[in-house]
Parts: sequence; structure tokens; C-alpha cells
Amino acid sequence: MFEKEYDVIVVGGGHAGAEAAASAANMGSKTLLVTMNLQTIGQMSCNPAMGGIAKGQIVREIDALGGYSGIVSDKSAIQYKMLNKSKGPAMWSPRTQNDRMRFAEEWRLMLERTPNVDFYQEMVSGLLIEKGRIAGVRTSLGLDIKAKSVVLTNGTFLNGLIHIGDKQFGGGRAGERAATGITEQLTDIGFESGRMKTGTPPRVDGRSLDYTKMIPQPGDPHPEKFSYLDTIVLKSQRDCHMTHTSREVHDLLKEGFDRSPMFNGRIKSIGPRYCPSIEDKIHRFADKDSHQIFVEPEGWDTVEVYVNGFSTSLPEDVQFKALRSVKGFEKVKFFRPGYAIEYDYFPPTQLKHTLETKIIENLYFAGQINGTTGYEEAASQGLMAGVNAHLKINDLPPFTLQRDEAYIGVLIDDLITKGTEEPYRMFTSRAEYRTLLRQDNADLRLTPKGYAIGLASEERLRKMMEKEEKSKEFIDFFRSTSFNPEDMNTILEDVDSSPVKQADKMYKVFSRPRVSMDHMLRLKEVADYVKHNDLDKEVMDQAEIQVKYSGYIEKEKNNADKLQRLENIKIPDHFDYSKLKSLSYEAREKLQAIRPVTISQASRISGVSPSDISVLLVFLGR
Amino acid sequence: MFEKEYDVIVVGGGHAGAEAAASAANMGSKTLLVTMNLQTIGQMSCNPAMGGIAKGQIVREIDALGGYSGIVSDKSAIQYKMLNKSKGPAMWSPRTQNDRMRFAEEWRLMLERTPNVDFYQEMVSGLLIEKGRIAGVRTSLGLDIKAKSVVLTNGTFLNGLIHIGDKQFGGGRAGERAATGITEQLTDIGFESGRMKTGTPPRVDGRSLDYTKMIPQPGDPHPEKFSYLDTIVLKSQRDCHMTHTSREVHDLLKEGFDRSPMFNGRIKSIGPRYCPSIEDKIHRFADKDSHQIFVEPEGWDTVEVYVNGFSTSLPEDVQFKALRSVKGFEKVKFFRPGYAIEYDYFPPTQLKHTLETKIIENLYFAGQINGTTGYEEAASQGLMAGVNAHLKINDLPPFTLQRDEAYIGVLIDDLITKGTEEPYRMFTSRAEYRTLLRQDNADLRLTPKGYAIGLASEERLRKMMEKEEKSKEFIDFFRSTSFNPEDMNTILEDVDSSPVKQADKMYKVFSRPRVSMDHMLRLKEVADYVKHNDLDKEVMDQAEIQVKYSGYIEKEKNNADKLQRLENIKIPDHFDYSKLKSLSYEAREKLQAIRPVTISQASRISGVSPSDISVLLVFLGR
Repeated sequence: MFEKEYDVIVVGGGHAGAEAAASAANMGSKTLLVTMNLQTIGQMSCNPAMGGIAKGQIVREIDALGGYSGIVSDKSAIQYKMLNKSKGPAMWSPRTQNDRMRFAEEWRLMLERTPNVDFYQEMVSGLLIEKGRIAGVRTSLGLDIKAKSVVLTNGTFLNGLIHIGDKQFGGGRAGERAATGITEQLTDIGFESGRMKTGTPPRVDGRSLDYTKMIPQPGDPHPEKFSYLDTIVLKSQRDCHMTHTSREVHDLLKEGFDRSPMFNGRIKSIGPRYCPSIEDKIHRFADKDSHQIFVEPEGWDTVEVYVNGFSTSLPEDVQFKALRSVKGFEKVKFFRPGYAIEYDYFPPTQLKHTLETKIIENLYFAGQINGTTGYEEAASQGLMAGVNAHLKINDLPPFTLQRDEAYIGVLIDDLITKGTEEPYRMFTSRAEYRTLLRQDNADLRLTPKGYAIGLASEERLRKMMEKEEKSKEFIDFFRSTSFNPEDMNTILEDVDSSPVKQADKMYKVFSRPRVSMDHMLRLKEVADYVKHNDLDKEVMDQAEIQVKYSGYIEKEKNNADKLQRLENIKIPDHFDYSKLKSLSYEAREKLQAIRPVTISQASRISGVSPSDISVLLVFLGR
Repeated sequence: MFEKEYDVIVVGGGHAGAEAAASAANMGSKTLLVTMNLQTIGQMSCNPAMGGIAKGQIVREIDALGGYSGIVSDKSAIQYKMLNKSKGPAMWSPRTQNDRMRFAEEWRLMLERTPNVDFYQEMVSGLLIEKGRIAGVRTSLGLDIKAKSVVLTNGTFLNGLIHIGDKQFGGGRAGERAATGITEQLTDIGFESGRMKTGTPPRVDGRSLDYTKMIPQPGDPHPEKFSYLDTIVLKSQRDCHMTHTSREVHDLLKEGFDRSPMFNGRIKSIGPRYCPSIEDKIHRFADKDSHQIFVEPEGWDTVEVYVNGFSTSLPEDVQFKALRSVKGFEKVKFFRPGYAIEYDYFPPTQLKHTLETKIIENLYFAGQINGTTGYEEAASQGLMAGVNAHLKINDLPPFTLQRDEAYIGVLIDDLITKGTEEPYRMFTSRAEYRTLLRQDNADLRLTPKGYAIGLASEERLRKMMEKEEKSKEFIDFFRSTSFNPEDMNTILEDVDSSPVKQADKMYKVFSRPRVSMDHMLRLKEVADYVKHNDLDKEVMDQAEIQVKYSGYIEKEKNNADKLQRLENIKIPDHFDYSKLKSLSYEAREKLQAIRPVTISQASRISGVSPSDISVLLVFLGR
């Protein structure tokens, strides 16, 4: 019924599976995407948004390498926002709100347009393994489909168990059934598996909300986009809104705590620390009287609304009563309650840097099956697994990324060296070299690599090279062109910077604090140069960042080097971490529990960030 | 968590459920649509097309009454065809091919834009019943939602069991779980239930087909549309294609017959006679060497293709091997195999004309739960159930349609009077007065009724009245305007009709066979009239049909009036048939069970003979 033997079979059609299929196929592998429901390819199971802090950088990296997530996000975007714009460029993080239906539809259509991707709808219930090497999959109907390589991206479906209050039922997502068989087979072979938990908030009827009581959260006035290719920039956008919980809401929620599967022990798995349920937030931060809620539209036209910040598995009547006490939600109607879901994952220390499993050759894991959380984390793993599946069966060298090359490199290195016991989410703080891993230069960092392996298109490379060249030339222009002191001083006055006395090279003043590209553009020579050379925003941003932050970049490189050298510093036996309030809460908890002997050991613990290490070093007198 | 009490709860979001929710809400009932998955509202479970013979008329009737199916079909159409255009206008049947994703999306958005419709995602597993009257529903989470009225539209989900070859598994549709609980509760109360079967063909990858070996089936060169409102007419269309099976294909299919659940007794339920599986066709028409296959695109952009005519529950390998032998399918790739599904239904003789159940007050059934098949049949029942649910709880008279008023009237009268032991499908031949029940006059027949009950909008009524008036005036014009014999004779010569000798009224010649509106438009006076009065196609068609078929129409009207006299003889509510010993035993039993409302309805009950009717008439004093 199928190809005699596929090169790559991808199991699952979520963010990880879709990227895995796209990348393997685009590199030339005959690829089959098998999923339980072809109509839910690219489904956003949780919030209708892509990107955000550190995650936006990952989407840009995926795009730079030749993946699809950025393009799909752009095509289905209803709002664009560059987060952290007031901070340094290492922190700038693009995010889109997306039309949930459109997003899934775009993914499906993009995959359909990808030569080499075949589709098949059925549950995969087992793997074909021959002499320690993958040979294909077996479906629940009993069909054997042969392949040289298999990528598992099962998300939350493996033995998925949904909890709402004291009720629980099998399911991979609300309204969809769980997948069975694979975990059992893999643990029989010797894989270690565990359970994780995640959750999602209620979906509600936007017509029942009073937005006048909330604070509008509009998109950027000049929206940008994820893809380095020529996707379309948003012309109109939809607002999100902000409201918040109150002491009263918390009290109402607490009434359900005795029926909460989180607190009565029914859920034993650990949930995502940085995306906690509302009951978790109330429990852990008992002194806080209020938590933010972001009210996110689910699309251009639909009235369905996502209640970000109110993830919960409390009984549905408790969810409802409490949400009705939130400002603007007094008359809320539910589309469906929030719930928690437990699912199987495989501690990712069982993987190589290529995401191939150590036990079974040519078997790859990507996404939540590796204990991560987040669409972007999943998508990037899918891409890397698809790429490496293709390379391996073609006897080509593996493709991995270093921690100083990409967030994707940090992510995978963290996973396979540190493992994770709770859903792993990316943060800028996880990257030692985050000033290098910016969203603006993902193409400069990664497109040549993506092109070299045959994934990124020539068009992509050409665009990247043009941007690189144009921004270099632009910087050279600032280095070599002198300003007129009078013109310059009107600018310097505006930014409250001391005036210049005589003409000098523009670069010199441009690197001063508070002087931005926008200011420089007021100089006729600069404006003329931009116009004459037809420079776009990407090029100007790049030039500006390289001029203004070159010092920081250098400095961080040095810091990173120092960190390397200070690896073997001992930590006293009974060191009391609870005293170090500047450590993150997670780091304190983990350090206290694991009690590392050396700084280097501490640095390898999942959740202990480079900045935590700096705090320790300072305290230890280094 | 919900309204204290809804007016109407609709269970299920398919064609029946969506129309039920829309109609009840539009009439003013606070309505809740509960479905297992809010993302599959308006899902086309089987072929991506609406309308067709007799079914197209139903869609027009739904639209005329103020339902949504016509609008949704127009908005998502990718091809339009008026079937049977070469036959008389009673047979003309509009059909669209639709974009499956768009169709569901439009339904969902139209319902969202309907005030009074709330949504909730969960499985309904039981009904709340108080003293023989419905009081609401209970969800699988154990939530009780109160309502004055409930419409059940469970489709194929009640204890759905999917068969492929010798495998079977629970499911309401491929990839979706079955619904449980309701059948058991209803049969406990005393409802009779049964099992029916339906099936669906494989979905395949359009990229793997060779269309050059098939016959293109384009849409009409001048596509029309379903809705009488101003929906948009298609500017471009997608082709379908035709191919056919062969002796070789049949032989390959027969190899799987021993593993067929149809033939080895595993499926006991009866399937739709007029939409048989391919194995059924081969079996029943053993002398036929070939059956047609229509290759239907699933949308504007997707490569997924529906293999109409190849419905099957044979083992997937047999399906595949056989389909590969069909011309153009030599390299076909499957998206998913065909399958059969068994599900619970309730013999519809347990219903009143309003689709309310006889046993439980204010409980309505619509769609496949009543043993019907087809989107259009389901949608029309949903509309009628929604309307009557609303009317009843507002103490308003019921809304029913007579057999000479609408196909919908024929459908419901057939169901509740005759019942059905196999999936019931509408045909023009089921209507005694099909010359009256045309697709062109559904608005004239039904919009005034729809408006009177508060469902059809004023805009709809205005449009209908304008069409009625304009077409009457146009006919008057033909009656009152004389032609120039010379001009007329060039036309008559073209259609091989004897020439006229002198001037006469146009009507006289227009009513001759073979003289069409197109011919009449060649006369300058007619063309001028059309231009001057800005007549659209609807008006011209209407005038033409009324001129050319007035004889047939009159004759049928007379017949209908005769029947109407019987229709007017009511049978008292609690009439005791057991006393009428001169009735045949069978007639007594059937009459007692079905309890017809009129003599006319009694006469249509299978097993009730004309002499039984005479006995009844005598007893009732006629």
C-alpha cells in the first residue's frame, strides 16, 4: 500500500512532526507523515500565539535554516509584537498572535505543496525494529510501513490522560483520543519513560466579555514578521486585552483545591514551571493578590477567546465561578473548561546530539516526547530530527548546532546533557551567549549552514548575503563619512548628549548612548544613502545593532570565556542556598536538592542558569 | 455554569445540529449547541458536495425558510452544476462541490454570528427527564445543563463502530471517538432503537493521480447558486473527473470478499441502498463490468481527493490493490482507507410531524438518528426540529409542511408514517407532486411561511415578493404583447415548429414545445423588456417555467387538492383502533402504533389498504 520503503516516517503532525516532515522531504528524503487525524495537522493545542521571549528567536532560527514555522506564523498572524524592545537587542523577541484555524490550514497546505511528503491517517501503535535498528512502523490496523528512519513526535498523546477536577479520561487533547502501544514497546526494549503534565485554560465566548473593563494590548504600530523571506506584513491587527485576578478570585479557586487533581495527589507528574496553572500560582505565591490574565482572540473572525494565564484543572464549576469574578468576565460563557493532561515522555538524556536515540539506530524523538514544552521548542527539534534522519541514511555527517550558534543548540545540548524532569522551556537566560544569539541575526548565523546541508533555498542564502553585505557597507559608510557639526548638534541636543565641536566620523557619535538609527536618519547624507541603496529595515536594524552593541558583544564573549576557566571551583559541603535571594527560585530549589560539589557540576543542572552561576561565583568571592 | 435554563439544547454540530441551533436561535430561543468537538462543527463526513437530485431542492427549501445550508454551500463552493437540465424543471437539481475546510469554517462562523447561540464542547452522555418531559442534558463530566427542549442530532456517533476488513473499533468518524450513554437511557425508557450502517470511500493524494486518463467533469459554464439571498456567484471553478472500474478491478475486490464485514456477517445493519459500497454494487449487479467513479477535489488548494463511487469496507490492502487498477489511479497513494460505520438510530415512527418524540415531551430527533442518510436530509430535519422546539415552548402552533408544499414535508411524513429500515434518502420519485416542488420556486412556496413563523428575514420576503411580482408581470407581458410574424418565424424555423401566419400574442407561441426563453429573447421587444425591467435569471426562469409547464402544474395542483380533502379529515387523538374489527389485523396494529393524525396520513402507512381506509371513513361518518 505504501512506498516499498520510505526514507523517513514522521509519526505525528504537530509542530515537531510538521517541521520534521518538511525538513526531511526538502532535503530529498521520501517522507511519510502518519497522524491520527489529517485534519489536525499543525494544530495549536494551547495558546494561539507563536514566539515570545527566547521562543521568537527560535522561530527566526527555524526560518533561517529553511523550516516553515516562521512562514506559517506570518501567514496566519493577526497581531505582531516585538517584545522587550526597550531592552538590548539580545532580548528583543518577536511574537505573533495567530488565527488558530488559518495556522493549521497553512501548515497542511504547505506540507501538501512539499514534494516528497506523503500523508497517511492512522494511529501508529508500534515500531518495526530489526537488530537494534528501526525498520518502520506498525499501525493500529496492523499495517506495516517500512522506513529507513523514523521520527516520533507524539506530543501529549502517548497514554494521554485528561484531568478536570476529580474526573479523568483518556485523550491526547480535548475531544481527541490518546495513542497507545509505543511507550510499552519502547520501555520493553529498555527505554526509560516518565510522565509529564501540562495544562490549558478555558476557552470562552468573546461575546460574553466586557472589554471596556480590560486594558487593550494592541500589536506594534509597525509590525514586522518572522520570516526572512518575502511573507506579507500585517496591514491590520486584532487587539489582545489584559485583566487580572483578585483576592476574591483566588478565594473562589481555593474552594476547589480539595477536588484538584494537582493537590490531592491524583496528578503526580510535574507541570511546566513557567506556565503554571492558576491554582499553582496561588499556591506558590500565596502573598500575591493578583495575577495577570491575557485575553487572546483565537482568530480574525471567531468569537472564541483564549484565557492566557488561567490554565487550570480545577473542577469546571470552580473554574467558572472564579472566572466570573474576574474583571470583564462577569458574564463569561465557557466554550470548554481548562484541563490538565498527563502523558508519557522519554528523558532526553537517552538521545544523541542529533536527537537520534542511543538505543535504536535511526529512531529520532522530537518535541514533547523529549520533555519539552512549547510549540517553538517542538518545531525546532522536529526540524533537527528531520535533517539528521535524512543525513544519517545518506551517510552524511550529522548536523548539530553549538551553544554559541543558536538557541536550538542550547536547547538540544541542555536536553541531552542535563535531561529534564519537568517540561523544559527555553529562556534567554539559558543561553550563555545570548548577545550573539539575537533574533535579528539568525539568518546570518544559520542560513549558510542551512544552505550547506541542502535545506535553506538559494533564494534564502542570496537574501541573507545581500543583507550581510548591505549592512557591512552601511557600517563602513558611518565609519568613513563625516558629519556636519551643526546638523549633528541638533540631534545631540534632542537626546541630551554633549555637543560636538568639530566634524568627525559619524560612527563615533552613532555609538553614543541614546543616539539611534532614527536620529542618524535625520542627517541628509544618511537618508540619501538609505534611499539610494534601497536599504530595508532588516539591514538598518542589523547595522544599528552592530554599531551600538559591539562593545556588549565583545564583553559577553569575555565573560563566557571566564566562565569556562572557572569551572572547578568547589562549593562548601553544607552551603545554604536559601540565603542567596538573588538566585532564581528554581535554582535555589534544585541546588538545595542536588547539592553540587563544584560550580561546574552546578552549571550542568537543568534550571541553573549562567546568571545563577554568576551569583554563586560572586558569593564565593570570585 | 450555564444559563439557568436554556430554551433549546442541540446535541451535535453536524448538518442537522447546526441548522437546528440556527433556526431555534434565530426565532428567539436561548440555544446551546453541545458537541464533542467544536472544531468539527459543520464537518462534511463524507463527500465534499451539497445538493444533487432532490437534495438540491431540499437545500433550496432550507434556504427559502431561512436556514443556513444554502449560504454556507455557496460561500464554500468550488464548483456548481444544475443536474438534469435536459429534463423538465421538476427534475432540475442544483449541486455544489465544496471546499471541505471552508464549509466547516463558514458554518462555525455563521453560528458564532447568530445571537442566542452558545457553544459548549463535551460529550452528552445522558438526558435529564422529569415526568415524561425533557429537562436538559448531562455531560460526560457530569454537568447538568437545563433546557426546556432538547434536539438530538448524534449522526453516526451513537455507539459508532468502524469496520475495515476484519478489523473493527469504536469511533463516530475516522479519527474521532464514539458517543455513549444516550441509546441505553432511551431504550430503558421504552424507545425502540436499531442499528444502521453507512460507509465512505478512501481519500487519496491528488498528486498521485493521472487525470489525463480520466474525463473532466467541469461545472456549469454559467454557475448559479443555492441561496436566494445575495451570495456570490462562482467566478472560477475546479473540475471533477470521471473514471470507472473494470472487470479486473472487480476481480481484485472479490479477493477480499471473504474478509469483508459486509459479507461475512459481521455487519448486520442495512446500508444505504442508493449509495452502496463498491463491493455491494459488484455483488448485486454481477453482470455489470464497470461502475463509474467520480474524482472530487476536497477544496481549492488541498491535494486531498474524494473517490466517489468507491465506498468500501474491504480490507485496506484490497481497497488499495483494486483502486490501483482503476484508470488514472495506477500510482494512487492513500490518505486513508474507506470504511463502514455502524451506529444506533431510532425508528422515526416514534416521532410526531414536528420531529418531537411521542414518548418524551420536548425531545426532538433530527438527522441520521432518524435513520436518514445525506447532509441535506439531516439539515432540513434539524431546521424543522429547531423551529418546532422553539414554537412548542412558546405555546405556538406547530410548523409542519405538507407533501405538496415541500420535499421536507415528504421527507418527514415518510419518516414518521412509514418508518425506515434502511438509511432513507430523498428522491424526486418520493414526491407525488414533484412538479410543484421545484428548486426554482422554493422561495415562492416557503419564504412566506418561513417569514410568518419568524425565521426568514424581511429581506428574504422582500426579495421573494419582488421575484414573484416581476415574473408575473413578465408573463403578463407575454400574454399581452403581440409578435411580428416574420421575426417569430425565423425562430420557429430554427426549432422545427410550424410557422405562424399572422401576428398573435407571444404567450401562444412561447408555450409551444422547443421554444425557450432564449429563443424569445431574440425578439427585440422581449429583450427590451428584460433590459428595461432589469430582470435577473431567477425571474426569467420562473416566468419560463410557469409559461411552459402551466398545464402540468395545474394538473398536479388539482390532484393535490383532492388529497388535501383527505388530509383535512382528522382522526381523534386517542382513537381506539382495536374496536374496529373490520380493519385488517396488520392495519390495526400499525395504526395503533403510528397513530396518524389524518386519514391521508393513515393511507400512506405501509400495510394499511384502501379498504382499511374505507372502514375508517365510514366509522368517522364520511
